[in-house]
Amino acid sequence: MRTGVWLVGARGSVATTSIVGGLALRAGLAGPTGCVTELPELRGPALPAFADLVFGGHDVATTPLCKRAEALATAGVLPGRLVAALPDELAAVEEELRPAPGVGSQAERAAAIVRDLTDFRDRHRLDRVVVVNVSATEPTATAHPAHADPATLRDALTGPDEVLPASSLYAYAALTAGCPYVDFTPSTGARLPALHTLAVERGLPYAGHDGKTGETLVKSVLAPMFAMRHLTVRSWSGINLLGGGDGANLADPAANAAKVESKQRVLGETLGYVPQGGTRIDYVEELGDFKTAWDLITFSGFLGTGMRMEFTWHGCDSALAAPLVLDLARLTAAAHAAGRVGPLTDLAFFFKDPLGSPTHSLGEQWTRLAEFTRALHTGRESADGQAG
Amino acid sequence: MRTGVWLVGARGSVATTSIVGGLALRAGLAGPTGCVTELPELRGPALPAFADLVFGGHDVATTPLCKRAEALATAGVLPGRLVAALPDELAAVEEELRPAPGVGSQAERAAAIVRDLTDFRDRHRLDRVVVVNVSATEPTATAHPAHADPATLRDALTGPDEVLPASSLYAYAALTAGCPYVDFTPSTGARLPALHTLAVERGLPYAGHDGKTGETLVKSVLAPMFAMRHLTVRSWSGINLLGGGDGANLADPAANAAKVESKQRVLGETLGYVPQGGTRIDYVEELGDFKTAWDLITFSGFLGTGMRMEFTWHGCDSALAAPLVLDLARLTAAAHAAGRVGPLTDLAFFFKDPLGSPTHSLGEQWTRLAEFTRALHTGRESADGQAG
Amino acid sequence: MRTGVWLVGARGSVATTSIVGGLALRAGLAGPTGCVTELPELRGPALPAFADLVFGGHDVATTPLCKRAEALATAGVLPGRLVAALPDELAAVEEELRPAPGVGSQAERAAAIVRDLTDFRDRHRLDRVVVVNVSATEPTATAHPAHADPATLRDALTGPDEVLPASSLYAYAALTAGCPYVDFTPSTGARLPALHTLAVERGLPYAGHDGKTGETLVKSVLAPMFAMRHLTVRSWSGINLLGGGDGANLADPAANAAKVESKQRVLGETLGYVPQGGTRIDYVEELGDFKTAWDLITFSGFLGTGMRMEFTWHGCDSALAAPLVLDLARLTAAAHAAGRVGPLTDLAFFFKDPLGSPTHSLGEQWTRLAEFTRALHTGRESADGQAG
Amino acid sequence: MRTGVWLVGARGSVATTSIVGGLALRAGLAGPTGCVTELPELRGPALPAFADLVFGGHDVATTPLCKRAEALATAGVLPGRLVAALPDELAAVEEELRPAPGVGSQAERAAAIVRDLTDFRDRHRLDRVVVVNVSATEPTATAHPAHADPATLRDALTGPDEVLPASSLYAYAALTAGCPYVDFTPSTGARLPALHTLAVERGLPYAGHDGKTGETLVKSVLAPMFAMRHLTVRSWSGINLLGGGDGANLADPAANAAKVESKQRVLGETLGYVPQGGTRIDYVEELGDFKTAWDLITFSGFLGTGMRMEFTWHGCDSALAAPLVLDLARLTAAAHAAGRVGPLTDLAFFFKDPLGSPTHSLGEQWTRLAEFTRALHTGRESADGQAG
Repeated sequence: MRTGVWLVGARGSVATTSIVGGLALRAGLAGPTGCVTELPELRGPALPAFADLVFGGHDVATTPLCKRAEALATAGVLPGRLVAALPDELAAVEEELRPAPGVGSQAERAAAIVRDLTDFRDRHRLDRVVVVNVSATEPTATAHPAHADPATLRDALTGPDEVLPASSLYAYAALTAGCPYVDFTPSTGARLPALHTLAVERGLPYAGHDGKTGETLVKSVLAPMFAMRHLTVRSWSGINLLGGGDGANLADPAANAAKVESKQRVLGETLGYVPQGGTRIDYVEELGDFKTAWDLITFSGFLGTGMRMEFTWHGCDSALAAPLVLDLARLTAAAHAAGRVGPLTDLAFFFKDPLGSPTHSLGEQWTRLAEFTRALHTGRESADGQAG
Repeated sequence: MRTGVWLVGARGSVATTSIVGGLALRAGLAGPTGCVTELPELRGPALPAFADLVFGGHDVATTPLCKRAEALATAGVLPGRLVAALPDELAAVEEELRPAPGVGSQAERAAAIVRDLTDFRDRHRLDRVVVVNVSATEPTATAHPAHADPATLRDALTGPDEVLPASSLYAYAALTAGCPYVDFTPSTGARLPALHTLAVERGLPYAGHDGKTGETLVKSVLAPMFAMRHLTVRSWSGINLLGGGDGANLADPAANAAKVESKQRVLGETLGYVPQGGTRIDYVEELGDFKTAWDLITFSGFLGTGMRMEFTWHGCDSALAAPLVLDLARLTAAAHAAGRVGPLTDLAFFFKDPLGSPTHSLGEQWTRLAEFTRALHTGRESADGQAG
Repeated sequence: MRTGVWLVGARGSVATTSIVGGLALRAGLAGPTGCVTELPELRGPALPAFADLVFGGHDVATTPLCKRAEALATAGVLPGRLVAALPDELAAVEEELRPAPGVGSQAERAAAIVRDLTDFRDRHRLDRVVVVNVSATEPTATAHPAHADPATLRDALTGPDEVLPASSLYAYAALTAGCPYVDFTPSTGARLPALHTLAVERGLPYAGHDGKTGETLVKSVLAPMFAMRHLTVRSWSGINLLGGGDGANLADPAANAAKVESKQRVLGETLGYVPQGGTRIDYVEELGDFKTAWDLITFSGFLGTGMRMEFTWHGCDSALAAPLVLDLARLTAAAHAAGRVGPLTDLAFFFKDPLGSPTHSLGEQWTRLAEFTRALHTGRESADGQAG
Repeated sequence: MRTGVWLVGARGSVATTSIVGGLALRAGLAGPTGCVTELPELRGPALPAFADLVFGGHDVATTPLCKRAEALATAGVLPGRLVAALPDELAAVEEELRPAPGVGSQAERAAAIVRDLTDFRDRHRLDRVVVVNVSATEPTATAHPAHADPATLRDALTGPDEVLPASSLYAYAALTAGCPYVDFTPSTGARLPALHTLAVERGLPYAGHDGKTGETLVKSVLAPMFAMRHLTVRSWSGINLLGGGDGANLADPAANAAKVESKQRVLGETLGYVPQGGTRIDYVEELGDFKTAWDLITFSGFLGTGMRMEFTWHGCDSALAAPLVLDLARLTAAAHAAGRVGPLTDLAFFFKDPLGSPTHSLGEQWTRLAEFTRALHTGRESADGQAG
């Protein structure tokens, strides 16, 4: 099952790490640490092998992929020896990267993307291509009447307006080209009625939003812990210090707002109430690709006794995100092969702000993911799946 | 369903907090924060109401209960207004406390305990009495041939040897008196073949060991998080600073060893390997009834990138333990009423070192607890329960 | 040497704690922990005794002082037993509190303040009254031409404009009444040319700004540590979570800006360069009078090796500030008695943003404070003092 | 002023980092970050230039220096580019390393060391050689009557006993060869009456003990902060997790005891009382050359209000120690040139357990160091120096 992985933002840190890692796994130079789909509970025949993944993508930047990989090695994100061992493989992927279409109406740009996707699929004789958005977070998008249905949208795209935010234009093009779409960012992506309808019409699955890589991952196990113990969380405050490209971007209050909101949602939906406090995001360039998050939780127990917990998470976002990108590509490809259509709510495990998910508890998300994967491997329908 | 709660170590901090809290709940002066059995998923008709709980117990100490309660109020463990509002109720419990039998052979001491228990049950016309051990942690016990079966044990107890550690002598007496037994400490308690056989013969359930109140609670959600994400935990080191009575006791290397071992077991069994590092326990008198635990976790992700997490837990052990003592008394009473016999492995949620439990993941333990409780409420058998 | 301590914001947490503490010290019910002037290096005959301090003050609030004291006791800021032991003493101070003048031109309000101050001084036959501003932080003030000299200012105050921010109006009134003035807040206070000239004309000392109670105290020893070790601080980021009255006030971006700026100044002036990062202030009501600050410092050592340090400070601002208020009142009174005039730059030890200070290193500030105090005790001039 | 730097433990991490750093400074490939003697307050003509330092040393290990340097580069302690740029320079130092004499009586071994030192001095026509002990920490040494005076010692060394611990044997040989001696470890070194007398007889200075690189550095500024603020430190507890060679060594309880004791001394001598708590040292191999220390400080302020502070220090011991080794070599060489004799108590700034020092406050130690250095530069006597 030859599977294309088309990365939007293909020269960014997450994409570069995903590509180097995918190539290293194929070459047997690295193990699958961090790849959830290689755990005994999820592994199985329905997933494309790492060796079957072929990488391509769009980017507005033009830095050569091997330069980006070397920079990440210097920053401690990747082992330099892997980059040094894979020059031909990286050059081959470089050949598959395309500039992000930047001129013309949105319809024209979408058509260019569709062409790049179908050419890629044909050139490599791929069974399917999964498009994964790993580009920088967009500011919160503004509503537009054409978001309501595919026909109106198609029309509107031919006009001069920026009807769709970039993430949604890629989703539109992917679905038009018959490709499943995954949004690893908090951007709008496929979350518009017109795009949902389009996905259903084309028999395509989609997944998202916002990869759960750091502080929110921890929140998604600690908040259920407090809930299961019937302890009252009185405040939950935190700060995220981050230095990479997305850091500068998130320091922008508009993008920040989208991210912070998806972070706090986990608490309210898990606890049943929203504790005091909030999450700050600050850009500290010198931290590079690493991120330090600190959270303070004050809570009260029996008879009101006040207690507290703090944690510091010092993680490398790209190293945490990249294996999940590979996991999502494999799972979404398998879901497509199995005829799943529409939002893949069983992939909530991977996301801060999962599509249609009734739970933010990592444990419950894991149970659903394991069932979903088992169904794919055994060819059965999962509870809420739909046949194409 | 009038239910006795007989506390071994009845004048200690955990017991005093449990008693004041139980009385305050009965009087409507406090809410059930921290009581797991009051969560919507567990609440139900099979459990005795708080108003149906009657408290008694043994202790080697003689400090009046109200003095202990006032001291805990001064230390910030309890609100002083509750102690002030319940003078008659506390005096009534004081009447039900008995000195721990300290002279004669172990058989004679056991007989004295049995007498105290049956007198208590008769005097208050109780449907049953649950014995809960909340006394100080014992040093690791030494094996004795008489631990093998009830008959040999009964014989050996009449001799001059200290055949059983105190916790097991109380378990023996409880079972002999027809009372279910719960061990909230890491001590031996009912974990001896002779006592297991005795429990089965008498048709009694028992539960334990070692209430999961602080750092280990956090471990039991963080370790599964790393496992579910396929991240490799390279080291997990920590220190527990604690000041209460159990602190001085645990600073003793022998008791310390038992506690530390039950703490590390969570990691090995959840991760499938034992990371480097260990847990230290230090006594710092000035911390009083509060405990500060700090843990450092180093882990590696995709392609070996090193990352780290730290947490500090600042909790009040008595305030965390007391509602669980009430929960365990209610659940064990209901299990007894429903004819459950032998180790209550479905109560693993409450314990650092649960009896016969296949999992240390808090999420999975919660699922089992919810199923167990549902079965009690609906009168069905749970998967691994046995009718009396 | 009978000394009045007139608190602007007399019913606030800091003032109430200062008053209760001062009365408790006088009554021998508490020791001088936190009072720098009771250390062997500073103690001496030039300072008024605690027994010689008489409290009074202004406030816009009207909550009775004993109610505020009881609320602070409930919040864990003060021991309840002290409040209970001092009912008459607190009632006597209550008699000395006056409403903050709120109507009329600024000249009329200043005159009312002057009257309150001179009445207080006469009524108690005080040698002098030190006015200490402990009211809420003001937004950054706007400049006004009348700030340039006393005569222009006097004129302008009679008009309808709010020429002076409240803190400066109190400073103006204090100086007019012949009282030294101390500003414990980051507000403008006496930092205007007109008020400096007025102080010199009247032969009065003044001190400020912004009591150094928590995170900045730690910064003022850690930043010199990095400097003395020739380590390069690459980033210093932090967050302050605070719940008291000043918390809500500081969450206001305008006031926040003033506070944050005075916090960062310590770093730049000590290190000789400004590292990346900044300080956030967030209001979390539930933290009450306690404040939690977390800082992350990344630094590089020999050959560029990256390292890091974190600290969490969990302090009670009122308990940290109150003894310093007493210290400042005593020291400023002694300075006045010794004929010191103008800004007391030797009191930099106490302040985040000290008047005219060449150093932010706590150690160097301490050395200057000890020399200043020694000079007062021995009757000698200190290096930069001026005789009246 | 050509100066030899003879390192005992010359192939260890600290020594290797010192050598690579010294060579890189000489070659202009790195700046002097972390080198205290390059700060404006200390820099000056009395100190030998980096270009004048010549390295040599003893070690029991035989791993080539460039292998050790490459391993440190892989571990993130050194930039790999420096090691790659200095192959000839490292090879030249390799030529100057000698095996630690391991056979014969202690007198014979001392003679062999003396020969190595004098040969080194002659071969390079050095003005002097400073011997710096950076080998692994020894267990606490046992007393011996021959420690009392040089003559008895000389006699005893010819016998079969291990009269001196290794660090003292090196000190003895250094002094015999006319070389100043610096002990960067907590081992005994020159701290024996016989060796002090020998140093005075030969007109040689010596310095030590135990380089202040991490947690204790922080303690030496925080403890004075609490003292200057008259706050009562109630407990100070901590844990050190470390992975390097010294980690395994310090996990040995005997060596651990020596280290822990020198750490706690800072607190007692600075505060005037010893707070509760202690410091643990644990070996966690995976941390490699980095060390993580966590400390919890509980303290009480005005009227007894309880507060707390935590810090985590994540440092690279070798990177922190190496520039100090260069500093100490330069300062001790200058002191020798200026005729200083006996313990250099003005170098307390560098040590956890300084010789004869009356203060553990980093600020005061800095003041003394600056005065000492100024005296060297200007050719004046410092307060407690002695002319040769």
